[in-house]
Amino acid sequence: MATLSDIGVSALINILGAFAFLVAFAVLRIQPINDRVYFPKWYIAGKRTSPRSWGGVVGKFVNLDIKTYFTFLNWMPQALKMSESEIISHAGLDSAVFLRIYTLGLKIFGPIAIAALLLLIPVNLSDGTLSFLRRDLVVSDIDKLSISNVRPKSNKFFVHISMEYLFTFWACYMLYKEYDRVASMRLNFLASQGRRAEQFTVLVRNIPHVSGRSISDSVETFFQRNHPDHYLCHQAVYDANKFAKLVRKRNRLQNWLDYNQLKFERHPNKRPARNSGFLGLCGKRVDSIDFYKEQIENLDKKLTMERQKILKDPKSITPAAFVSFKSRWGAAVSAQTTQSKNPTLWLTNWAPEPHDVYWKNLAIPFVSLSIRKLMISLSVFALVFFYMIPIAFVQSLANLEGLEKVAPFLRPLIEWNFVKSFLQGFLPGLALKIFLYVLPSILMVMSKIEGHVAFSVLERRTAAKYYYFMLVNVFLGSIVTGTAFQQLHAFLHQSPTQIPRNIGVSIPMKATFFITYIMVDGWAGIAGEILRLKPLVIFHLKNMFVVKTKRDLEKAMNPGGVDLPETLPSLQLYFLLGVVYMAVTPILLPFILVFFALAYFVYRHQVINVYNQQYESAAAFWPHVHGRIIASLLISQLLLLGLLSTKEAANSTPLLVVLPVLTLTFHKYCKNRFGPAFRKYPLEEAMSKDTQDHASESDVDLKSYLADAYLHPIFHSFEEVELVEVKVDKDEPHVASPSPSELSSPSPQHDYDHEDEPSHNVQHYEVEPLPTMYHYEFESNSNMYRYDIEQHNQYYYY
Amino acid sequence: MATLSDIGVSALINILGAFAFLVAFAVLRIQPINDRVYFPKWYIAGKRTSPRSWGGVVGKFVNLDIKTYFTFLNWMPQALKMSESEIISHAGLDSAVFLRIYTLGLKIFGPIAIAALLLLIPVNLSDGTLSFLRRDLVVSDIDKLSISNVRPKSNKFFVHISMEYLFTFWACYMLYKEYDRVASMRLNFLASQGRRAEQFTVLVRNIPHVSGRSISDSVETFFQRNHPDHYLCHQAVYDANKFAKLVRKRNRLQNWLDYNQLKFERHPNKRPARNSGFLGLCGKRVDSIDFYKEQIENLDKKLTMERQKILKDPKSITPAAFVSFKSRWGAAVSAQTTQSKNPTLWLTNWAPEPHDVYWKNLAIPFVSLSIRKLMISLSVFALVFFYMIPIAFVQSLANLEGLEKVAPFLRPLIEWNFVKSFLQGFLPGLALKIFLYVLPSILMVMSKIEGHVAFSVLERRTAAKYYYFMLVNVFLGSIVTGTAFQQLHAFLHQSPTQIPRNIGVSIPMKATFFITYIMVDGWAGIAGEILRLKPLVIFHLKNMFVVKTKRDLEKAMNPGGVDLPETLPSLQLYFLLGVVYMAVTPILLPFILVFFALAYFVYRHQVINVYNQQYESAAAFWPHVHGRIIASLLISQLLLLGLLSTKEAANSTPLLVVLPVLTLTFHKYCKNRFGPAFRKYPLEEAMSKDTQDHASESDVDLKSYLADAYLHPIFHSFEEVELVEVKVDKDEPHVASPSPSELSSPSPQHDYDHEDEPSHNVQHYEVEPLPTMYHYEFESNSNMYRYDIEQHNQYYYY
Repeated sequence: MATLSDIGVSALINILGAFAFLVAFAVLRIQPINDRVYFPKWYIAGKRTSPRSWGGVVGKFVNLDIKTYFTFLNWMPQALKMSESEIISHAGLDSAVFLRIYTLGLKIFGPIAIAALLLLIPVNLSDGTLSFLRRDLVVSDIDKLSISNVRPKSNKFFVHISMEYLFTFWACYMLYKEYDRVASMRLNFLASQGRRAEQFTVLVRNIPHVSGRSISDSVETFFQRNHPDHYLCHQAVYDANKFAKLVRKRNRLQNWLDYNQLKFERHPNKRPARNSGFLGLCGKRVDSIDFYKEQIENLDKKLTMERQKILKDPKSITPAAFVSFKSRWGAAVSAQTTQSKNPTLWLTNWAPEPHDVYWKNLAIPFVSLSIRKLMISLSVFALVFFYMIPIAFVQSLANLEGLEKVAPFLRPLIEWNFVKSFLQGFLPGLALKIFLYVLPSILMVMSKIEGHVAFSVLERRTAAKYYYFMLVNVFLGSIVTGTAFQQLHAFLHQSPTQIPRNIGVSIPMKATFFITYIMVDGWAGIAGEILRLKPLVIFHLKNMFVVKTKRDLEKAMNPGGVDLPETLPSLQLYFLLGVVYMAVTPILLPFILVFFALAYFVYRHQVINVYNQQYESAAAFWPHVHGRIIASLLISQLLLLGLLSTKEAANSTPLLVVLPVLTLTFHKYCKNRFGPAFRKYPLEEAMSKDTQDHASESDVDLKSYLADAYLHPIFHSFEEVELVEVKVDKDEPHVASPSPSELSSPSPQHDYDHEDEPSHNVQHYEVEPLPTMYHYEFESNSNMYRYDIEQHNQYYYY
Repeated sequence: MATLSDIGVSALINILGAFAFLVAFAVLRIQPINDRVYFPKWYIAGKRTSPRSWGGVVGKFVNLDIKTYFTFLNWMPQALKMSESEIISHAGLDSAVFLRIYTLGLKIFGPIAIAALLLLIPVNLSDGTLSFLRRDLVVSDIDKLSISNVRPKSNKFFVHISMEYLFTFWACYMLYKEYDRVASMRLNFLASQGRRAEQFTVLVRNIPHVSGRSISDSVETFFQRNHPDHYLCHQAVYDANKFAKLVRKRNRLQNWLDYNQLKFERHPNKRPARNSGFLGLCGKRVDSIDFYKEQIENLDKKLTMERQKILKDPKSITPAAFVSFKSRWGAAVSAQTTQSKNPTLWLTNWAPEPHDVYWKNLAIPFVSLSIRKLMISLSVFALVFFYMIPIAFVQSLANLEGLEKVAPFLRPLIEWNFVKSFLQGFLPGLALKIFLYVLPSILMVMSKIEGHVAFSVLERRTAAKYYYFMLVNVFLGSIVTGTAFQQLHAFLHQSPTQIPRNIGVSIPMKATFFITYIMVDGWAGIAGEILRLKPLVIFHLKNMFVVKTKRDLEKAMNPGGVDLPETLPSLQLYFLLGVVYMAVTPILLPFILVFFALAYFVYRHQVINVYNQQYESAAAFWPHVHGRIIASLLISQLLLLGLLSTKEAANSTPLLVVLPVLTLTFHKYCKNRFGPAFRKYPLEEAMSKDTQDHASESDVDLKSYLADAYLHPIFHSFEEVELVEVKVDKDEPHVASPSPSELSSPSPQHDYDHEDEPSHNVQHYEVEPLPTMYHYEFESNSNMYRYDIEQHNQYYYY
C-alpha cells in the first residue's frame, strides 16, 4: 500500500518526466530542421513554405538564436491566443469541439474537486476507523481520506450520498449546457458553410438490379419519378479496385522518374542508370530516365484499356450512387425519407463529405450488412473478453527455450546471465505489447468489415470498440483481479446485486493505483504527445532514405488528424475515473484536473500547429462523448450503491436507487432534445440556406458544380476528355464551371509557394483547368492525395 | 400430479362446457329478439334494419321455425364463406390481420406438433427414467411423455436440441412469410384506399408560442416558408373540454325531450309531466316537453357563448395543429423529416385517422411527455411486481370480522355456517377478482396519461402493459411459486445463469397445469366469447330500462371493436406456452392447436357479424405481435438451456447457445426489412398515388375536402354558418364540396333504413348538406357519435 509520500515521490518523478519532455520539445521545435514535424499544419495550409532560417548551412538545420532558447514555454500562450472561431476556421469544427471535451472535464471536475476536498475529506477524516485499525492492518494514507475511513453503519454516508446527487446534477447540468452549445455550434457551422457538394447530395445504396437496364438508368428513372421537382443528377460508383492498383504503380514509377530527372538536372554530365531486372538488382544496365519513361508509357496503355473497360462494362458500376438535388431542401427530404416499398432497397443517407467517403464499402448489400454487424459484434465481444487466450499461447511459444531451438547460434549469448534475465522479463510481455500496439488497427479493420461508408464513422466505431476494451480490461481489470475471461465467468455466476458489491468494495483500495496511472499515462503521456518523438524520428529517417521528390517530402510531413480512435476512449476513461472516485476518494480529482488542463494546452497547440484533419464531420462524435460520460455516471452510481451496501448503511443506501433512474431519464431527454441535430438536417435550415443562395448568387451552374464532386478519386487522374465521358449527367461545357470544392478540386499549383492560398473554409469559384493526365503531382492536395495517404498510412492500412 | 385420465376428464368437462356454450349460442342467435346482439355489424353497416320475423307478436321475439334449430353449427361454414378481401372491405384490415394471427398459430404449431409427437415423444418414452423411479415418487403420466423422462447425461438431448433448432427455424420461416404478407397487405390496403384526409395530413405538435402572434399564424408562416410548394391549409386544435361537457348535457336533455315527445305521440291524450327539482324527485310538477325545451334553449345560449369564447380567445387554441398538404408526397415528406433547428419543436407525425384521434393528448408539451413516460414505466413496473401489496391490504380489511363490525345486523346471517364458509372462501378473493377485472381499464388510463394521441396507439400500449403483467404473473407466477415480488427479489439475488435453471427445471412439472389452463381459459373462454353473455344481458336490460329513442337503441347495440388490449396479450401467452413446451412436453401442443382453430372460427364469426372496429390502423399492431413471438422463442431457448444444464448434458447444451443469437439477428433483420412499412409511408407509393389521382380526377377541390376533416368532433354540432367561421383556411363555397370521408361526414339519414348505404371502403363524394345545429340525432354515425361512445363505454371511461 502506498503512503502519501510514495505518491509524492511518484508525482515528482512524473512531473520531472513531463517537464523533461516539455523542455525537449521546446528545444526541438525551434530547430529549423524540425519545422515540418512541429508545424506541418501551416505548411499544409500554405501559410509557411520553408522554415525560418538563421543563414548559412548550419543555420538551415540548427537554431542559432540563443534568445529563443530561454522562452521555452512560450508555446503555451501562443496556443491560447487563437479564439475558438479562429480555430474553427483554421482546423475545422471537429478539432474545436474535440478541445471542448477537455474544457468540459475542467468545468465538471473543477467545482466538484473543490466541493469534495472541502466537504468530503473532513467527513472522511473525522471518523478515523482506519487509524484505529492500523495496528493490525497496513493501510494507505490515501485510504484515510477516502470513504473507507468511515465507520460502517455511520450516518455520515448521508453526506456521501447527497454529494453523489449534487455532483451528478452538476455534471448533468454541464453536460446539458455543453450539448446545447455543441449542437448550436454544429448548426451554425453547417449554416455558415458555403455551397458544398455534400449539402446537395445523398448517398443511395442497394439500388435494385433490373434486368436489361443499367444502374444509372434505374437511378435516373426512379428519382425523376419520385422527386421530379428536385432531382438534378447523379454519379455512379465504379468498382475500380484493379484500376486503383495500376494508378498506384504508375505513381511510384512517376516518382522514380522525377527523382532521376532531378538527379540528372543537378549533375547534367552523368545520366542516371539502373539495372532492368527485379528491383533493379539484376539484369542489364539501362538509362534510368528512358527506362521509367518506357515503363510509364506501357502502363498508360494498360490504364487506358482498364479505364475503357470500367466505363463500358455495366458490371463495374456498383449498386450505389451519389444523387444530387437542385436544392438543399430536396436533398434533406430524400435523405430523411423512405423511398421504396421494400425498405431494404433505395436506402438513402446524407452523403459524407467527398474526402470522408470510404469507397470500398459503398456496394455492400443489405443482408450482408446485417450479417457483418452480427459477426463483428461477436468478434469484439470475444476480443474484449478472450484476447488473453491467443496471447498466452504465443507467450508460451516465445520463451527462451523456443528461441534457442529456432536460433541455436544465439545460445551463448542467451546463456549469459544478464541477457537471460532481461529476455525472461521481456519476452513474455512482448506478445502483449505488440498486441496492444496493433489493437487500434485491428479494431479499425473490424469497423471496416462492418461496412461503414465514411472515415468519420469508421473512426467513431473504432473508438467505441476501443472504449469497451479499455473499460473491461483497464478499468474493471485493474479493480477486480483476474483476466477479463475470469471476470466474465464470475459475472455470469454472480447475482446482479452481488457484482456492484464485489467491484464497489475494491474501488477505494485501487485509488493509489489509478493516481499513479493518471500520472504515468496522463501527465507524462500528454507531454510525450507534444514531443512527437515517433513522427520526429520517422520524418528524419524518411527524409534521409525515402524522400526523393517534393511530393515525398509532403507525404513524410503529413501529420494526419487527431487520432480520435485512441484519444477519445482514453479521455473517456479519465472521465470514468473522475466520476467513480468523486464521492469515494476525492483526492484523485486534482490529479485528473491537472491532466485535463495539461492535455488542453497540448492538444490546443497540436490542433493549431500540427494536425490536419482529413475530413470534417461537424462534431458528429459529440453524442458518443456525451453518452459515455452518462454511462460513467451510471457506473459510478451502481458501484457506490455496491460499496455502501457492504458498509451496512441500510438507512441511507436506498436513497441512491433513484439517481440512476434520473440520470437515464436525463440522457433520454438529451438524446431527443439534441440528438436529431447530429443526425438530421432540419428543413427549416435547408430552406433558409436555399433562399439565401437564391438571393445572393442566382446564376451558379449547380449541375456542373456537382458533376464530379463525388467521382471516385482515381478518376480525377483522367484526362479532361475522359472526365466528360465519365460524368453521366454533365452536358455543360466544363471550362467555365466552378471547382467542386476547394478541397476536392485538384489545385493547379503543385507546391505551396503561393501565399494567397485560400484558407480552409473559404469557398473559391475561380475558373481553373482540370489536371491533365501526366501531372500526377498536381493532385497532392486532392482526393488523389487522400487516396495515397490511405495506402501509406499504417493506420488505415490494416 | 395429474394422470392422463385426470387430463381426460378435465378435457371432457371443458369440451362439454364449450359445447354447451356453442349450443346456447346456436339457439340464442336465431331468436329475433337477440338479433341486434349477435349481428350488430350488419345493422351498423346498414345491410339489415330489423330482425327477420316469423309473424305475430311472439314471432317478433322468438324463432318459431323448428328447422333452424337443427342446424345449430351452421355459423361455422357461414363464417368461413367470406374471403379475406371481403373481410377487409367489410370489417377493415385490422380485423383481417387480427384473424391471421390465429392462422399463424396453426401454421406454426401444426407441423411442429406433428414432428414433435412423432419424433420427440418416442425418444422421451424410450428412456423410462421415471417409470423406474415410480415406486418412490408420484409422477404424472404426462411427465413420461416429457423431457423429464430422459436420463441425465443422456445423448438423447441432442434430439431435443436439434428439434429446438428445427422448430425455431420453422417458426422464424413462418413469421418471416407472415410479416412479408402483412406488410404487403398493409401497403396494398393503403394503396387501394380512396382519397382520405389522413393521407394528406400531418399532425404538428409543440408549436412554439411567439408573442404577438397566434398559433394559426405561426403554423401558416412556418409551413408557407418551409414547404412552399406543398402546404395547403391547416386546422387548429381547440381546447374544448368545457364545451364538450355542455354538448353532452344538451344531448342528454335532447334525448329526454325526444322520449317525452314519443310518449306524447303514442298517448296524445296525456301530456307527460315531471318534477322540476333535483333529478325530477322534488319541486313542483311541470310539463315535461316544455321543461326540456326550455332547458335546451337555455343551454343553447350558453353553448353559443362558450363557442364564441373558444373561437375568439386565442388561448383556447392549443399548440398543435393538423397541417394538410397538396399532395400525399408533400405530407409524406413533412411527416418523415425534422422541421426545426430545435428538434423538440414543430414535431411532425402522420395524422391518425380522424376517428382515431385522442384529442385530449394533442397539447402535451415535449418535456412533460418525457416525464410522463418515465412515471408510467415506473408505475407499470410497480404494478406488475407489487400489485399484491394493496390487494393484500384490502383483503386483510375485507374479512368476516371487518364485515361484522361494519354491518352488525348481518351477524346472525354470517354466523350461519354455510354462509360463513362461503364468504370466507369468497371474500379474500373478491378484491383480487375486482382488481383483475378493472386491470385493463387501469392500464388504459396509464396509457392515456403517457400521452399517446391515437386510440389505436393507446390500445397497443395497453396491450403491451397487459402482456408484461401476464408474462410475470400468469406465466412465471405459475411456474415459480411465490408472488411476483418474491420472484423479483430472488431474481436480483440469483446469478444470471441460475435464473433460467430454476425456472427451466420446473417447466415440465407445470405442463398439466397449463394444459388445464388452456382448456378452461382457451376452449371454454372462446366458446363464451361467441355466446356474448354479458352484452346479451346488458342489451336486454338497457332495452327494458334505458332505451328511450332510436339513438339509445343504437348505442345499446354498439358492439365496439375487437378488444385488442385483452385479446392480443392472451393470444401471445398461448404462443409463449406453445413455444416453451414444444421441445419439453410436446403433448401440450394439440391442446393449443385446438384453441387456435376454435378461436379462429369464433373470431371470424364475430368479426363478420358482431364487432365494428372504431378506427383503422392498417394492421399497425403487427410488429408487436411479431416481436412478442420472437421474445417467446428467446424465452423458450433460455429456459431449455437452463433445463438442460440441470440435466448435466454438458456435451450437448453448449450447442444451444448459438440459437438465441441467431433468433435475435433474425428479429433485427425483420425489423429493418419490414418495420419501416408500418411506420413510414414510402415516397414511391405516395408519388404513384398522387399521379393516379391527377390522372383520374383532376378537378377535385382538395382544400374544401380537407377543410373540416380534422375539426374537433364537437364542432360538428355547430350550425353551418359557424362551421365556416371555424375553418380558418376555407374560402371556397361549401355546398359543392365533397364530404370529408364517408365515415367522418355525418350522414343525412338519421337511421339505417336505406339499403344503398355505401360499403365501408368505397368513397362517395355526393353533395350533402352539413348537419344543422338542432339535429343532433343525425350524427349517430359521425364523430359526434364516436365521442359519445367514448363517454359511455366503460372501457374508455377510465
